[in-house]
Amino acid sequence: MDKRTEIDELGEFGLIEQITKNFSNKNSSTKIGVGDDAAVVDAGKDYLLLSTDMLVEGVHFDLSYMPIHHLGYKSISINVSDIAAMNGVPEQVVVSIGLSNRFSVEAVEKLYEGIKFACKDFNVDLVGGDTTSSPSGLIISVSITGRVEKDRVALRSKAENGDIVCATGDLGGAYIGLQVLEREKQVFLANPDMQPNLNNYPYVTGRQLKPKARMDIIHELSDLKVKPNSMIDISDGLASELYHLSNQSDVGFFIYEDKLPIHKQTFDTSVEFNIDPITSVMNGGEDYELLFTINQDDHEKLKNHPDIHFIGYVTEKEKGINLVTKNQNVVPIKAQGWDHFKVKD
Amino acid sequence: MDKRTEIDELGEFGLIEQITKNFSNKNSSTKIGVGDDAAVVDAGKDYLLLSTDMLVEGVHFDLSYMPIHHLGYKSISINVSDIAAMNGVPEQVVVSIGLSNRFSVEAVEKLYEGIKFACKDFNVDLVGGDTTSSPSGLIISVSITGRVEKDRVALRSKAENGDIVCATGDLGGAYIGLQVLEREKQVFLANPDMQPNLNNYPYVTGRQLKPKARMDIIHELSDLKVKPNSMIDISDGLASELYHLSNQSDVGFFIYEDKLPIHKQTFDTSVEFNIDPITSVMNGGEDYELLFTINQDDHEKLKNHPDIHFIGYVTEKEKGINLVTKNQNVVPIKAQGWDHFKVKD
Repeated sequence: MDKRTEIDELGEFGLIEQITKNFSNKNSSTKIGVGDDAAVVDAGKDYLLLSTDMLVEGVHFDLSYMPIHHLGYKSISINVSDIAAMNGVPEQVVVSIGLSNRFSVEAVEKLYEGIKFACKDFNVDLVGGDTTSSPSGLIISVSITGRVEKDRVALRSKAENGDIVCATGDLGGAYIGLQVLEREKQVFLANPDMQPNLNNYPYVTGRQLKPKARMDIIHELSDLKVKPNSMIDISDGLASELYHLSNQSDVGFFIYEDKLPIHKQTFDTSVEFNIDPITSVMNGGEDYELLFTINQDDHEKLKNHPDIHFIGYVTEKEKGINLVTKNQNVVPIKAQGWDHFKVKD
Repeated sequence: MDKRTEIDELGEFGLIEQITKNFSNKNSSTKIGVGDDAAVVDAGKDYLLLSTDMLVEGVHFDLSYMPIHHLGYKSISINVSDIAAMNGVPEQVVVSIGLSNRFSVEAVEKLYEGIKFACKDFNVDLVGGDTTSSPSGLIISVSITGRVEKDRVALRSKAENGDIVCATGDLGGAYIGLQVLEREKQVFLANPDMQPNLNNYPYVTGRQLKPKARMDIIHELSDLKVKPNSMIDISDGLASELYHLSNQSDVGFFIYEDKLPIHKQTFDTSVEFNIDPITSVMNGGEDYELLFTINQDDHEKLKNHPDIHFIGYVTEKEKGINLVTKNQNVVPIKAQGWDHFKVKD
């Protein structure tokens, strides 16, 4: 009998590595292929960026608490975030949807209202797509192009020893928001007369339902003439992203617990759920903030920015990836990215 | 109660029109958005082309007769065909897959063997993607980039009165191949001891299982210095593609029945299935041949090409889209594209 290996055994990143290891690039226009937030393609004086993300009902979203226009917005925003993570500006999207007959034209129109709103917000043009039926549920696949000046592209592989590590916004909120939404859904399923109680959690549920790619930061870095040495977006959790930067730049990290940005509602709700707030920050995914490293010389230009936080520094690879706790203990950070293939256990 | 319109009522093209009508392009780099085989983006001295297609198990393919490596090949080939239809050359693809736990790592590897084979065949680089779980079945979403010199891009909207209409290869085979595969599947389901009898139908089943985008034609047109005035790939059936060209170029057509290219096996198998062979040619989808129009002056350069057929000419819009039958009757051609939303009735 043929060998059968379950995908769970490899996980998402292992599977991607396994299937892409035998591919090599043949076109001279392909500058960077698999392995960063977006591919990099030569386009004359600029680089063209190309990325894609697929959202599957029952895996990435639950329409029982996700308003469908928010889903449309989110499907664009998370793709824009991949372009932002290359220090680029998004330009075009193509959107493919698979729809079961559960969905009416009116529902699809609401989905596209959200897509349109995001296109306006991020100045992106919807230039194509594909529309098909699906045996079950909704599938949204978005591909995006962006543009960046050649000397401003920010890669995962260029963090340098001594760089300052920066994170934008605050972290862990989207993950905690998901816990709140899942709990309220269970309450509702157990007793449909109960109305979901989301009013106490507007910030964290908003972080989950309508994440906004940080294009504002990209434009500000450009205005301030700061070019990050390396950058990645925080989609799978801070710990996981630090591992990506570490592997690709061949560096280690010291991250300071007391510098990690967390919103008060994320902190309080974590405690309510008996989750260590640091776990929410480190391993909660879907915040779509940016993690980047800068030369120490650039600290001066960013130090007064209210939404960029200096959370640690880059060190030698041998030192590992470490958290310096509030009481000055140094503990290794474990990667624990969100794995679609395991999340449904 | 909110209004509910079923997607069936609009069909795929109606739905696309409905949801994209309120979108407008804002980036100066966006030259052509929704409405052609690929979007056209400014990329310095060339145009960059961008297209996408989604394949859903149970809608576009049936793994009970579709070998999974062929599916991988086809998922790339049909995207390459969209770039060919713009007179462009493909360069990069991103591939997203959604997988249920029915699929092993080995099955995914076979899928990617086919993808890799196609990438090699068409000289395309796989530069990214997304891999996720799916509650049911396999979903493959591919987006592709291509490149074309600015003065060689071929659009659906530029057919000119007096142009000669050309079709490549032969038509209807993929549709008839699908009928054969479906019949053998039913035989197998009724009696699992029966082995599928596909040996008598190698050509038509091959047309369905492993369509090959006509990049050879694109390179030859370039070598022969012929620039088609308009072009589209034949994915939904000749009649449907003629309607697209007619609507977008504001022209009509006279097409000659005795010039339509059909393979003997397509003809014979159509008859066996009690399908008028002209119906297979006109309304059968998935051949991924090219339909284009050329200046009469260019006829000389192409007249000896063994695989380009001159099937008619372009006329005024008011004349309509017509078939001149073998006995010189003129009958209007009806569009009857393949509609994913209706195919499962």
